[in-house]
Amino acid sequence: MRATVIHGERDVRLEEVPDPVLQHPGDAVVRVVAACVCGSDLWKYRGVQPVHEPVRIGHEFVGIVEQVGDDVRSVAVGDFVVAPFYVCDNTCVNCRNGVSTSCLHGGWWGSEDGTGSSADGGQGERLRVPLADGTLVVVPGGLPSDDLVPDLLTLSDVMCTGHHAAVSGGVTTGSTVAVVGDGAVGLCAVLASVRLGASRVVAMSRHEARQALARSFGATDVVAERGDEGVARLKELFDGIGPDVVLECVGTKESMDQALRSARPGGQVGFVGVPAGGPELPVGRMFSTNVGVRGGVAPVRNYLEELLPEVLDGRLRPGAVFDLELPLAEVAEAYAAMDERRATKVLLRP
Amino acid sequence: MRATVIHGERDVRLEEVPDPVLQHPGDAVVRVVAACVCGSDLWKYRGVQPVHEPVRIGHEFVGIVEQVGDDVRSVAVGDFVVAPFYVCDNTCVNCRNGVSTSCLHGGWWGSEDGTGSSADGGQGERLRVPLADGTLVVVPGGLPSDDLVPDLLTLSDVMCTGHHAAVSGGVTTGSTVAVVGDGAVGLCAVLASVRLGASRVVAMSRHEARQALARSFGATDVVAERGDEGVARLKELFDGIGPDVVLECVGTKESMDQALRSARPGGQVGFVGVPAGGPELPVGRMFSTNVGVRGGVAPVRNYLEELLPEVLDGRLRPGAVFDLELPLAEVAEAYAAMDERRATKVLLRP
Repeated sequence: MRATVIHGERDVRLEEVPDPVLQHPGDAVVRVVAACVCGSDLWKYRGVQPVHEPVRIGHEFVGIVEQVGDDVRSVAVGDFVVAPFYVCDNTCVNCRNGVSTSCLHGGWWGSEDGTGSSADGGQGERLRVPLADGTLVVVPGGLPSDDLVPDLLTLSDVMCTGHHAAVSGGVTTGSTVAVVGDGAVGLCAVLASVRLGASRVVAMSRHEARQALARSFGATDVVAERGDEGVARLKELFDGIGPDVVLECVGTKESMDQALRSARPGGQVGFVGVPAGGPELPVGRMFSTNVGVRGGVAPVRNYLEELLPEVLDGRLRPGAVFDLELPLAEVAEAYAAMDERRATKVLLRP
Repeated sequence: MRATVIHGERDVRLEEVPDPVLQHPGDAVVRVVAACVCGSDLWKYRGVQPVHEPVRIGHEFVGIVEQVGDDVRSVAVGDFVVAPFYVCDNTCVNCRNGVSTSCLHGGWWGSEDGTGSSADGGQGERLRVPLADGTLVVVPGGLPSDDLVPDLLTLSDVMCTGHHAAVSGGVTTGSTVAVVGDGAVGLCAVLASVRLGASRVVAMSRHEARQALARSFGATDVVAERGDEGVARLKELFDGIGPDVVLECVGTKESMDQALRSARPGGQVGFVGVPAGGPELPVGRMFSTNVGVRGGVAPVRNYLEELLPEVLDGRLRPGAVFDLELPLAEVAEAYAAMDERRATKVLLRP
């Protein structure tokens, strides 16, 4: 079968690899129906996170279960499943606390799988899923209609990650919110904030198509300014002090600085941007303003059961973040399109 | 009249200064009944925050109103009042949001008062109180019994600051909590956590008298270990992962590091230690563990109305943090005793 392997900076290839096989009694094998490229994959693609040897890549996928190990109970051959962007048992104390990304037995796609074996990447035709009972969520009703697939695929990462930003920021009924970052996660954070009852949501974006998508997701305002001007504009919009909550969905020093300086005194920054080499947070500023910071790697698995029904009944349509669809064979072009910001998010079909 | 002036490192003097007079129609003049020395005063005393010219010092006091300006409505001559450790109008948008330490018109004792005038310090016989209607809280019933004065005085800072640590850490019914710092604020954070319903509260202390006081405030456990050993001990006590909440009540790089590494994945650090030259927070660790950080300079004024009735009816007795009482004339000895950790907190009577 074929799967995506990253060899180094700007060198992504679809290659022939061995078919996956069950290695542990809790494993399943899933045939991928759709996968996609994540903004965080670009850190490797751009050389920000060096790649020392060729590795499998991709961590978002939906698919059909083809085999299950002897211990697998909640997933059966033929089920259509959504996988979170990591492996977890969904039973340990951290999973029960709602932090399945800190699962005591978990692992990561394209990396160590938590059992000492190497996990496959999601951008391939098939993969072995460790801890299948914990990791996979079955979509009731079997194979969904084709137009639902992009919506379901966002539950693998970006929609749940945007939701995590909003939850970490404490968004609730009546909150005023600004979102830093107009990538797929930032756009999903807009949608999640609206869903949680925010009274006003500002998308910070200077990209026309993304501004439009943010508005279609419920953003009430768009601010194109950044830095000091962005801070000033947000103060102007919110009582001279700024919004209650700012969602940081990029991961750079500049975006975190923007977020911390934009929230009102006593406000909160919810952050989900994978920190790319820092930044360290200025505790003196946080102390004097009482702006809290909370977030991190999103416990997607813990949110899936809450969000899945709303996707299935059409209330939640985050799939609109995909603005390009390519066959898996063109995975290199998918990375290039996202790297060059020609596409917000690319869906791949094997 | 006499008031305390700090001249430089380890140089605190009680000096003759001009009597305070009403400068603005919103001012009051208060005769101090009791004041005290704060752990944060020690940053100046120790030269960590350099003192460039002699300045009035002290920001915690209770007293009796002696004069009020023409615009003062909620405070009358003869009232016994508690002042927060800062000046605020209690009406601006930040005050209404619960963050009166970010009052748009506020100021600081011994510093700029928010109107461009210089504010008196609290360690003196009398002081001018700007924005008296906003700043001062009247204790119903007039002059309290002498043994209530220490309890009331803690509402000026340490009890409300400990409460702010617990609120910022999200302590609620059933929370497991560890408190880093066994000063008066840390001890009050123990008391506040118990009051908010924590099921288990660990005081981190290696000081016998403070351990005993922490237990009398409701601490269920004491951990004397620090650093890696402290982290390991807390993991051991709480499911191998650590407590839900850690309250940072010191303000050093070491104490914040202790707090961040001790909280369980998805936990929260509530911090109120005045950051002494940093530290910057490691965003990568916060991201991977989903441990949030929230806190800062405590909005005491916003908590006073909630806590005052419990002090008055004896349910809340935080005054036990005072383990030394001296006449104001011995203010230099009060600083020395706290600096040398011979006293946890010193009460001064003019």
